Amino acid sequence: MLKFSKMHGLGNDFVVIDAIEQTVELTSAQIQFLSDRRFGVGCDQLLLVEKPQTAEADFRYRIFNADGGEVAQCGNGARCFARFVRDKGLTTKDTIAVETASGLIYPTLQADGSVTVDMGKPIFEPAKIPFQAEEATTYMLTIDEHGKKEIAALSMGNPHAVMLVDDVTVASVLELGPLIESHERFPERVNAGFMQIVDSDSIRLRVFERGAGETSACGTGACAAVVSGIKRGLLNTMVTVSLPGGDLQISWPDQDASVWMTGPAQHVFDGEIAWATIKQH
Amino acid sequence: MLKFSKMHGLGNDFVVIDAIEQTVELTSAQIQFLSDRRFGVGCDQLLLVEKPQTAEADFRYRIFNADGGEVAQCGNGARCFARFVRDKGLTTKDTIAVETASGLIYPTLQADGSVTVDMGKPIFEPAKIPFQAEEATTYMLTIDEHGKKEIAALSMGNPHAVMLVDDVTVASVLELGPLIESHERFPERVNAGFMQIVDSDSIRLRVFERGAGETSACGTGACAAVVSGIKRGLLNTMVTVSLPGGDLQISWPDQDASVWMTGPAQHVFDGEIAWATIKQH
Repeated sequence: MLKFSKMHGLGNDFVVIDAIEQTVELTSAQIQFLSDRRFGVGCDQLLLVEKPQTAEADFRYRIFNADGGEVAQCGNGARCFARFVRDKGLTTKDTIAVETASGLIYPTLQADGSVTVDMGKPIFEPAKIPFQAEEATTYMLTIDEHGKKEIAALSMGNPHAVMLVDDVTVASVLELGPLIESHERFPERVNAGFMQIVDSDSIRLRVFERGAGETSACGTGACAAVVSGIKRGLLNTMVTVSLPGGDLQISWPDQDASVWMTGPAQHVFDGEIAWATIKQH
Repeated sequence: MLKFSKMHGLGNDFVVIDAIEQTVELTSAQIQFLSDRRFGVGCDQLLLVEKPQTAEADFRYRIFNADGGEVAQCGNGARCFARFVRDKGLTTKDTIAVETASGLIYPTLQADGSVTVDMGKPIFEPAKIPFQAEEATTYMLTIDEHGKKEIAALSMGNPHAVMLVDDVTVASVLELGPLIESHERFPERVNAGFMQIVDSDSIRLRVFERGAGETSACGTGACAAVVSGIKRGLLNTMVTVSLPGGDLQISWPDQDASVWMTGPAQHVFDGEIAWATIKQH
């Protein structure tokens, strides 16, 4: 039997698997099966809790999209990861050192059950996003027949392109999202964010996620949007981000340092699935 | 903790709950929560296994749609119900007598793991479907600006309207389905089936289900479609029904008697969810 928990952060949902107490080897097809909402368990991303590879970390955190591909970073997942290792008794720490494919992160459990995550420093150097352009802070991207659209490109461990819109509720997220995601200037594809500035302390945001489609709440997307808004002089350093699934608090007090995200992490249920069922896939 | 199993029949998926060993009382809002694919467990229908109310039955089988409403019949669910009570050791019988809101059914477990269900007799009397018309076998239904479309209306414990189409892959299921579902001549709404005759032994079918939208495989819809095709002289008495989720075998050997359905029932995983989590909804 493979034991797992189902969790979500603002409706961005996860199958979380303890790969320390259990030996877990999953093929891409098996991850696709587990992520399938009708034939499997169902989730946006599958999270693996593994032993750390270095002495400075408590855990290693690996993230797989529903399409089976491994990704480097997921902010909502990091909050759920932190709650999971505490709730399951794998640690007693409030601040946990976690290895990700994009570096160490330090989620902190708050007394109210929410989790604050140091999301690391944003990366603006085009080659490191990666983004094939001279300048990423603002760039006029040509999107097929839709013409040129101004975006800000940056990496929060994964690549983001953020576009300003007047009203997120009517923005062409499902039309432009896939075109931006697969744009030739983003060789590893990109997460496409659509940001409406409400005032200098609050935005509304929708994100079309790489490999996942539109999601209810993309944590790194919220960070990327706020960073791009601060860089453009449109936002203060502590911003409430209203996403379809709920609110996140994003702060970037020091432009030479990390972005911080605070938000909920909800455990839904525990499950177990036979390896024989998994191995049919 | 509430224990449950996740199962599916051709991708029509179910949260199945033993309400004999556990005391289970769920509000409509709680069923909606459990059925939610991101915030809850996720399913098309929630199935309750209860003690029978009469001596002739082994179990009572209750079915709730994702919108929280109770429905009388679900053929894919009946197959999963039968596998569940056998796999969980609640019975050792091959043929099980099950009370439903539309009468007794007798699912039979086959050696290959598939389940045959006596789906009961089709009902053609308009008032009992219920359908506000003189004649149900073929009826020209006026569907708003789409004009008159020929349908066959019947009940398989729940109301169905079946329309012939040339090619199910391009049929306007998502456009016409909601209009037929809520048509004023069906006072309790209706399941809308779109049937393509391949030959006299096989059909292709898509169903827009009442309260659930298009589903991958509607068991009673498959029965209703085959019955309507036999009544029109287009089909033989044993028909393979190809649905988006896979194949069902439907037979109606005697027009004065029951329709029989054979198909798969797949257990996916077992889970448990805290009542405290459920009661937040």
